[in-house]
Amino acid sequence: MTTQKNYESSKLMSASEKWFNKYEHVKVVPDGVFQGVLDRFNGITIDSAAEECEESFFDEKLTKSIEHWIEEKKRAIWFKVHRDQSYMVPILVRNDFLYHHARGEFVMMYRWLPKDEVMAVPPFAHTMVGVGALVINDKNQVLVVSERNALIPNSWKLPGGYCEMRENLIDAAIREVEEETNIKTRFESLVSARHAHSAAFGCSDLYFILKLIPETQEITKCEREIADCRWMDIDEYLNHENVHETNRSFVSYWLSLQKNGMLIDVVDKTHKLLKRDYQIFFPRNIENGES
Amino acid sequence: MTTQKNYESSKLMSASEKWFNKYEHVKVVPDGVFQGVLDRFNGITIDSAAEECEESFFDEKLTKSIEHWIEEKKRAIWFKVHRDQSYMVPILVRNDFLYHHARGEFVMMYRWLPKDEVMAVPPFAHTMVGVGALVINDKNQVLVVSERNALIPNSWKLPGGYCEMRENLIDAAIREVEEETNIKTRFESLVSARHAHSAAFGCSDLYFILKLIPETQEITKCEREIADCRWMDIDEYLNHENVHETNRSFVSYWLSLQKNGMLIDVVDKTHKLLKRDYQIFFPRNIENGES
Repeated sequence: MTTQKNYESSKLMSASEKWFNKYEHVKVVPDGVFQGVLDRFNGITIDSAAEECEESFFDEKLTKSIEHWIEEKKRAIWFKVHRDQSYMVPILVRNDFLYHHARGEFVMMYRWLPKDEVMAVPPFAHTMVGVGALVINDKNQVLVVSERNALIPNSWKLPGGYCEMRENLIDAAIREVEEETNIKTRFESLVSARHAHSAAFGCSDLYFILKLIPETQEITKCEREIADCRWMDIDEYLNHENVHETNRSFVSYWLSLQKNGMLIDVVDKTHKLLKRDYQIFFPRNIENGES
Repeated sequence: MTTQKNYESSKLMSASEKWFNKYEHVKVVPDGVFQGVLDRFNGITIDSAAEECEESFFDEKLTKSIEHWIEEKKRAIWFKVHRDQSYMVPILVRNDFLYHHARGEFVMMYRWLPKDEVMAVPPFAHTMVGVGALVINDKNQVLVVSERNALIPNSWKLPGGYCEMRENLIDAAIREVEEETNIKTRFESLVSARHAHSAAFGCSDLYFILKLIPETQEITKCEREIADCRWMDIDEYLNHENVHETNRSFVSYWLSLQKNGMLIDVVDKTHKLLKRDYQIFFPRNIENGES
């Protein structure tokens, strides 16, 4: 048995991932076996960059490792294969590994070992998350854009787009409005959410409509993305043939919330144990301040 | 130039993806160049199973294809590599392809060709989507569970879990409640949404709380996932030290909606042009029926 002390788990995953999944170094392994880190579901993750292995030895070391893990009754075995070690991919495939997810510089592959237990690896994310901004000025005009490359040409839409990685919905909406129109805004309320399937990359799609208050009025459109952009009277918007009925309905939902003295507010919280920040959207009566 | 007529685009993507992204066959390509399909962003997608290529010829064919695509001013080049052709992966890496996403039997790799234009490939989905069910019976009791493998042991939580691929939020909540507790339910209202980052697989996490009405009362817990499960009086739930404050607040939000005569209802729609079904969540006043 050897003890490998220099395992650089920092290469494997960020502190937050490590904490969340409760990873721990595997301290002692037999010679010629990958070390890896243990997760709270009794799985092992190998990082190709942290445990480099000459190409000609990989097949043999993998076989020996799998035998060891089966003996130890490990469950899912994960290989995070960086581009520099991509020679591992076809060999892992021959050893019954499946793809789980991939991004930029790495692909994550896995094999479920237990033969007496149904495969319990959750699928990776399969939902694209986007935002649309309902920006209404004090002349009762809605900020609308017409996109280049639109699926439906000449349609008037709300400014918006996909959330970036680890970006909050509100930040994404404010950013997209500024990028597309140069209008500065602040958050007022969540209004609606749309859930669709079979969208980009075969993913599902969640689209949140956020009511924002404009802090500037003068539009400068993004030449790259936006064909046209303007302030449109609410009445025109609600009757315009090139405004999709769903986009019209978002305005109605907002007016209904307002009429009932409600909004869907946000609160920032931090989970005390997990040390994770999160945001909660919740309905609130404006007048009596209750939540 | 050759015309390849038998390209099986059915292997490449489902009808919905094809329509959504407006893929078209590339009809004419020079000899020794991959054919692929053209998307509306002037990108090309090659499916490894639809255009099989002997391993010893792949490198050369790829080089010739890239030269052709650069000449034709194509933008993103996509290779959907199935496990059977995984030998392609290290060769694509050597030719400056990055990983985009992967799932089970395939990995999708891409290379952005334009040197005079910033890379415009959107990232893949990076948000896990889950649901929690607020099930309250007519004795004012909340259905609570304590999970095996919980991050925080012995805590009482709302039943719930991740949405499956292409599953609607309501269906997921009803399914999870039935799987975990055997209670049958129906949808009443969306209550709240929580957005967190650095969750499983480094993804963000969207968690929706849905108010469900129980149609049965007798609990039979899922032995595999659930350590304990019961009906808990609302007052006990709101003061229980092993109920996280966020889970308590979800009950308060529901009570507030009720007090204001509101709920967050759902409507099923179909996009006429895209032929896509989708669901919209929207605030509604119960008494006057307006939306």
